[in-house]
Amino acid sequence: MYFFQDRYVPKEEIAVSPDDRGYYFGDGIYEVFRVYGGKVLEGKAHFQRFQRSADGVRIQLPYSAEELNSIVHKLIDVNQIADGIVYMQVTRGAAPRAHAFPKQSEPILLAYTSEMERPLDTMRKGISAVTLEDTRWLHCDLKTLNLLANVIAKQHALDQGAGDVIFHRSGTVTESSSSNFMMVKQGELYTHPANNLVLHGITRSVVLRLAKQLHIPVHEQPFTLEQLQLADEAFLTSTTSEIMPVVQIDGRAVGDGIPGPVSRKLQAAFEQEISELT
Amino acid sequence: MYFFQDRYVPKEEIAVSPDDRGYYFGDGIYEVFRVYGGKVLEGKAHFQRFQRSADGVRIQLPYSAEELNSIVHKLIDVNQIADGIVYMQVTRGAAPRAHAFPKQSEPILLAYTSEMERPLDTMRKGISAVTLEDTRWLHCDLKTLNLLANVIAKQHALDQGAGDVIFHRSGTVTESSSSNFMMVKQGELYTHPANNLVLHGITRSVVLRLAKQLHIPVHEQPFTLEQLQLADEAFLTSTTSEIMPVVQIDGRAVGDGIPGPVSRKLQAAFEQEISELT
Repeated sequence: MYFFQDRYVPKEEIAVSPDDRGYYFGDGIYEVFRVYGGKVLEGKAHFQRFQRSADGVRIQLPYSAEELNSIVHKLIDVNQIADGIVYMQVTRGAAPRAHAFPKQSEPILLAYTSEMERPLDTMRKGISAVTLEDTRWLHCDLKTLNLLANVIAKQHALDQGAGDVIFHRSGTVTESSSSNFMMVKQGELYTHPANNLVLHGITRSVVLRLAKQLHIPVHEQPFTLEQLQLADEAFLTSTTSEIMPVVQIDGRAVGDGIPGPVSRKLQAAFEQEISELT
Repeated sequence: MYFFQDRYVPKEEIAVSPDDRGYYFGDGIYEVFRVYGGKVLEGKAHFQRFQRSADGVRIQLPYSAEELNSIVHKLIDVNQIADGIVYMQVTRGAAPRAHAFPKQSEPILLAYTSEMERPLDTMRKGISAVTLEDTRWLHCDLKTLNLLANVIAKQHALDQGAGDVIFHRSGTVTESSSSNFMMVKQGELYTHPANNLVLHGITRSVVLRLAKQLHIPVHEQPFTLEQLQLADEAFLTSTTSEIMPVVQIDGRAVGDGIPGPVSRKLQAAFEQEISELT
């Protein structure tokens, strides 16, 4: 069962209008909620970010936070999701194509669930990544439907036999195609500050909080590709990838080429967060 | 009548799948063809650019140039369009949401016509514009469905009582929200070179060709907001705006505050192009 435009419907009955501004302009925002054992991890933070994205592109959310929360939980219940995700997006609505905001249009909400296994095996082994110039717009802090650069970057990584890209702007590392990126050097954690150039990841926040609890020094400051070459460990963080070690970058091993002790310690602490939820 | 996914259908019968990657990612490209007296202006150039955009985002066009041309002309005929546009977009197709290209998906074409009057009165008077930092991605030469920055910029202009924005990157003028931008200084024409930071406008090319025929020196080189303040004339060029004088920028008159002689000469030459078509 999906939720679309004010009601719960089977996917087959959903007919998106060709006039939906999501279709012409990518004029909308989204959020992905992670479900473990039927419970949503960090739900409040996701709803806050959804509101922030909406404000950033000046879309009026069609429901209150409480109503959105009900929709998320009803979908989890109806679809009997144990481990999975809830995807939710809002577009500015349907109107004849013109760039300016339509005078009258009702924002349109689409939401659905997917079963999704945790990537446990991959998290134990880690993935490889390739570096790529970050050509995205300058509002990467907003989760919008303008994701073509991310799509092309992800495909570029797969074409190179890698799991993801590490974006950089003129040599300064930003993040990955749909994850934040962190490196460890001499037991200390480095990640790009949460400004307009990176997504303000929920998992990123959780990891930084856990790092502080574990007395791992945290530096929210930009670093370069050259500095990254000297990293002992590296990993991605995202709602679906959790804490995903990056063990090879552009064909070179990161540290020992296996998930390092800081990464594993953070993974264990994150595991604890999940187990406390369920 | 629209064209959607292999057939001509009334708009009401079109049901875009929620899995269409155009809807999740803005994963598609588009083109707008201008129709005068039932004829398409610069059709070949538009089809070439459509192919170039498709190549740029690695989408396989579902039809040959000849077939696309037939669709454009059939829609004009069936809908009896005299003065108007044909809008055409292709998305990468429908597949469960994942950033990487789907292994199997059929690109989906949507095309329709709209009646559209020429903006003759506005072209005589000119419009005002406001400057705005250009925060778009670095592939503005591709006409993709990732248009949120353009949408927000256009609305920003309207909110300021202006007709459009003039984008600049750290003070270097690029273009407008859906038009190229040109300025005239001492009888010579300046516009941003056709690189990755601006759309390679068809009307831009026509205007540059006409300028050369009229012995107006043309400089395809970047200029700054400071240099723009000293311009004698300025105008936008686009498929639907044609040659649109900008007579006020950020509240200051451009030159005499009315469309200048070079702009009017180019408008007259463009008028001639149209009359030769029909």
